[in-house]
Amino acid sequence: MRATQYQGDKTFNVLEKEIPEPANGEVRIKVAYVGVCGTDVHIYHGMMDKRVNIPETIGHEMSGIIHAIGKGVSGYAVGDKVVVRPLDDRKVKPSDKGFNHICEELKFIGIDSPGAMQEYWNVPAFTLHKLKEDTDLKLAALIEPLSVATHDVRLSGLVAGETAVVLGGGPIGLLVAMVSKEVGANVIISEVNEKRIAKAKSMGLNAVSPLRVDLVEYVREQTEGRLADVVFEVAGVQPALDVMTEVAGIRGRILMVAIHGEPKPVNLFKFFWKELKLIGARVYEKEDYEKSIQLITANELPFEDMITDVQPLSNIQNVFENIDNNPDGMKVLMDCSL
Amino acid sequence: MRATQYQGDKTFNVLEKEIPEPANGEVRIKVAYVGVCGTDVHIYHGMMDKRVNIPETIGHEMSGIIHAIGKGVSGYAVGDKVVVRPLDDRKVKPSDKGFNHICEELKFIGIDSPGAMQEYWNVPAFTLHKLKEDTDLKLAALIEPLSVATHDVRLSGLVAGETAVVLGGGPIGLLVAMVSKEVGANVIISEVNEKRIAKAKSMGLNAVSPLRVDLVEYVREQTEGRLADVVFEVAGVQPALDVMTEVAGIRGRILMVAIHGEPKPVNLFKFFWKELKLIGARVYEKEDYEKSIQLITANELPFEDMITDVQPLSNIQNVFENIDNNPDGMKVLMDCSL
Repeated sequence: MRATQYQGDKTFNVLEKEIPEPANGEVRIKVAYVGVCGTDVHIYHGMMDKRVNIPETIGHEMSGIIHAIGKGVSGYAVGDKVVVRPLDDRKVKPSDKGFNHICEELKFIGIDSPGAMQEYWNVPAFTLHKLKEDTDLKLAALIEPLSVATHDVRLSGLVAGETAVVLGGGPIGLLVAMVSKEVGANVIISEVNEKRIAKAKSMGLNAVSPLRVDLVEYVREQTEGRLADVVFEVAGVQPALDVMTEVAGIRGRILMVAIHGEPKPVNLFKFFWKELKLIGARVYEKEDYEKSIQLITANELPFEDMITDVQPLSNIQNVFENIDNNPDGMKVLMDCSL
Repeated sequence: MRATQYQGDKTFNVLEKEIPEPANGEVRIKVAYVGVCGTDVHIYHGMMDKRVNIPETIGHEMSGIIHAIGKGVSGYAVGDKVVVRPLDDRKVKPSDKGFNHICEELKFIGIDSPGAMQEYWNVPAFTLHKLKEDTDLKLAALIEPLSVATHDVRLSGLVAGETAVVLGGGPIGLLVAMVSKEVGANVIISEVNEKRIAKAKSMGLNAVSPLRVDLVEYVREQTEGRLADVVFEVAGVQPALDVMTEVAGIRGRILMVAIHGEPKPVNLFKFFWKELKLIGARVYEKEDYEKSIQLITANELPFEDMITDVQPLSNIQNVFENIDNNPDGMKVLMDCSL
């Protein structure tokens, strides 16, 4: 079988390996498609070399078909289409209060242990979600990032008729915007890159540049002064932190989706004055996957527009090299049979 | 009648005035006791000279007895014991989404308009809460600050069995701790001033100094690793902001009670990683006053220990001068008949 490995130093290699047998409680998946996540790009850039066990096969956004079933696994059959929820919560403790998806000893499969950028992949059966037979496996590779979005939107409590402002129009930002729109919210994306703005617009989403319009005044006009009910901070930059507390209306909820590595200045006075809420959101829970699978199965949102390239897995080095140079690209998939 | 006025420049004067007639919709209160709030001390220090209409009678923590009733007021009688919820929300707009207590055009009575540091005070009847006949009017002067605490605790969603850490053991911190304990929570106060620690302990509260113990490790031991379910940031200093995200456990809720005038560094990564919530809380709503009135009427908490001095209103200049020099003092009341 074909496998890829991150070697450090912005390098992947492609190697031939024996197909491994699934251990007790595991299944072997023939991986169909694997998507490249921002986290994979961080790994490629060497930002997570302390955490990743180099050389390592990475990747966690995927779809596939069950190829073999280990001992002690029930409820699945060879040929089932599946996706993996890549959270290994087997070391959960009572102090995690039942929040297994963010438990202190969580292992993220594809970062902390081998991932999906290979032809066959063994995973614990408890990570699986079964798909319908006619599910498009390309779209299904979006279920993992889409579940980040369904999680964010669920934790925000967004309801129909509310206004959501999404700061940042990259892949997660667009998915959050699509899910918010599906909820029935009025959605405004703020994005500085004109190509990403055009992309969002081509998908039927409302996107503006905060370099061209005064975002707060724009949202005020759109909402008869209410401002945003929910703000999703997906940009990860200081100007987004500065505007999030301005663009949120009274009792607005701000979802912290972006990862800020260092403490950053936040206008806490506005939290007090308008009784704002800041809600941290990380990965997803089972129900978020179920919601995402529903959405992908229904296929009524412009998911196909999210997939801007499909490349053979054997091209992995080129794929990562090209991603940095292509900010209007959204989601790149790799076909693991090629 | 006797009235006091803040004159600017750390100066109050005491003057004789005619007793004013209540306008339509107003009642005249014979003020019994008025408490000195941290905000009053800020005004005294000249920090709010732009907002206060100098010379002005300030004060908003009070108790009193209805002395006369204006036209168009029903449901109240001369002799009723009352407290005032000093929020004038008459300019509320639809964009305030029904959150009248923090509406954009809110006027805070006693800051933006004349307050209670006088013998008689006219207020709109809609600000009144009636007390039982046998209510202690000294304790009743605590209802306003206590309502800040009942509001904070209500918005935190704190329930019995949870652990609350209160950062800052001043008057509001102690009231928050008392209300949290009454809910059935395990409460730990963090306070650097040894006299305030001793005061809290004398009131049956658990208080530690973060200068003497590692607060996070202390809370970890007390909670079998769960850490705090709720953190109340009442201290208003950077070390409290630094520790709040450390001492909160998974999905912990952090209540922003303190007023931070400038943007401050916040560890947003911890919000993401542990799915923390930051909840801004300002003043109170009707139901918070009702809860506070219940608690004061029941008088099962050590409210009397909160009142560390009662002075004649005519001593107002001395009262404010002494507050700065007495960090172990908690709540100072002034008797408005003297």
